[in-house]
Amino acid sequence: MTSSTLNRACGADLYFKCEHLQKVGAFKARGAANAVLQLPEATALVATHSSGNHGAALAWAASERNIRCKVVMPDNAPDAKKRAVAAYGADIVLCQPTLEAREATLAKLVAETGAHVVPPFDDKRIIAGQGTVAQEIIGQCRELGFSPDLLVSPVGGGGLLAGIGLAVSALAPEVKVLGAEPAGADDAQRSFRRGERVTEQEPDTIADGLRTTLGVRNFSLICRHVNDIVTVSEAGILEALSLLWHRTKQWVEPSAAVGLAAVMEHRARFRNKRVVIVLTGGNMDLAAAATMLDGRG
Amino acid sequence: MTSSTLNRACGADLYFKCEHLQKVGAFKARGAANAVLQLPEATALVATHSSGNHGAALAWAASERNIRCKVVMPDNAPDAKKRAVAAYGADIVLCQPTLEAREATLAKLVAETGAHVVPPFDDKRIIAGQGTVAQEIIGQCRELGFSPDLLVSPVGGGGLLAGIGLAVSALAPEVKVLGAEPAGADDAQRSFRRGERVTEQEPDTIADGLRTTLGVRNFSLICRHVNDIVTVSEAGILEALSLLWHRTKQWVEPSAAVGLAAVMEHRARFRNKRVVIVLTGGNMDLAAAATMLDGRG
Repeated sequence: MTSSTLNRACGADLYFKCEHLQKVGAFKARGAANAVLQLPEATALVATHSSGNHGAALAWAASERNIRCKVVMPDNAPDAKKRAVAAYGADIVLCQPTLEAREATLAKLVAETGAHVVPPFDDKRIIAGQGTVAQEIIGQCRELGFSPDLLVSPVGGGGLLAGIGLAVSALAPEVKVLGAEPAGADDAQRSFRRGERVTEQEPDTIADGLRTTLGVRNFSLICRHVNDIVTVSEAGILEALSLLWHRTKQWVEPSAAVGLAAVMEHRARFRNKRVVIVLTGGNMDLAAAATMLDGRG
Repeated sequence: MTSSTLNRACGADLYFKCEHLQKVGAFKARGAANAVLQLPEATALVATHSSGNHGAALAWAASERNIRCKVVMPDNAPDAKKRAVAAYGADIVLCQPTLEAREATLAKLVAETGAHVVPPFDDKRIIAGQGTVAQEIIGQCRELGFSPDLLVSPVGGGGLLAGIGLAVSALAPEVKVLGAEPAGADDAQRSFRRGERVTEQEPDTIADGLRTTLGVRNFSLICRHVNDIVTVSEAGILEALSLLWHRTKQWVEPSAAVGLAAVMEHRARFRNKRVVIVLTGGNMDLAAAATMLDGRG
């Protein structure tokens, strides 16, 4: 999708890749489908931990193969995401909203049930699956007769950004890949700049999909295949979100607005460039959105 | 656009025609463009009255030809629509929210300025322009290898429904055309059933784009080319609206939800049918939407 209003506002040619229109309303369907399609025939139960979209994606992918699914979710996950997981027939197991609690709860569940774990991002199958979005983008741009200058993607656990970096470096190495993350959850930028994976962070951002810490495989691939990582403010995320709702008429969630926020807050890097921005997901209640905007004051 | 979730929920195959993604965020761009492109070279000023989307559409179409534009708007028109009109460079003239006040204010303006009037719906150029949406729908369905059973469109002033009826009767007479309107603004259904244009109504509906009374030309064309008109409840509009936001991730305005509401409230007529629903526009503030849902209480 394109918007002439946003192009004028940003001084760049923006192309939005609409992963909020993907199955389960998020790019996570790609990785989950790729992982589930590779499971042995006999697999009866899969499990994962997720703040939301990966959980729904795994629940969906498992249900397509008639495999049972259990999802460990932090108790502060948005209601819309809990409902989505349940709607695909998975069981939800709530835990404290820390990576430690999520991993411990999942480990206990696996010990008890023998479930096959499909991790949310630090997994080769997941990374390869998410990378298909870049494969599609490159193909679609070629069909339209151009090559993008830059591809911008939000980064949380790093499955999407690592997959995109990997795919772009193989298929269109001339395209620059940029990660974008909230300043309130900037472990990816710190890791990238330090050349060493930073794990200590207390995420503080409305972009609930990006509160996770960069995975090990993800960090390694991002260092090799991504050009840079920029951060954006919370005000910038809200402004970009409102523009996406009101200008492109697309109902996206806060994490999905981080790419546009990056273009708006780092204008000089994008001026007169052809920029593809991944809109990562659209799973949010209107009520939650209204509360969020009220909190803006 | 399609949604497998909505198809399952409605027991029908639904195809959404996305006029909220049209220029100015509404189908009204079609009629306004058609009218403005037919004006004589020397035209300096156009004017109209509109509850919003036609005003923005005329302002946009006029600006594309460097023609000045004045729009008479009821003072209860949504802020988003006032801002849109202003953003395209038109002057806004506020008036009381009645058809009489709108027409009187416009007449005075024309007497003072000699502006060329482009009416919102009761106009051949407007009707023909809006009808292009049906021409596109028929063509797009043929490309996809099918013919729809039914085409459902909201009806307010009747420009869109009359244009659709006209186009479908010429291009695909086997397709049934249904109008849908809020029970709280049901003049079109009463006119259609009585065979005589009803003008007395006090519209009471959240679908602000459908508060207008059916035009003369529109009524005549609708009687000849439309199969039926059904009404929907306010609760039905809100439910359809919420489903469109959360399931299709499309940010549409209340009037745009009336077609889906009709399919949901008159289920038996649509069961197992291929139904094209026109999503007419997407011009609404999130804040206005939140207030509206609160009022649902």
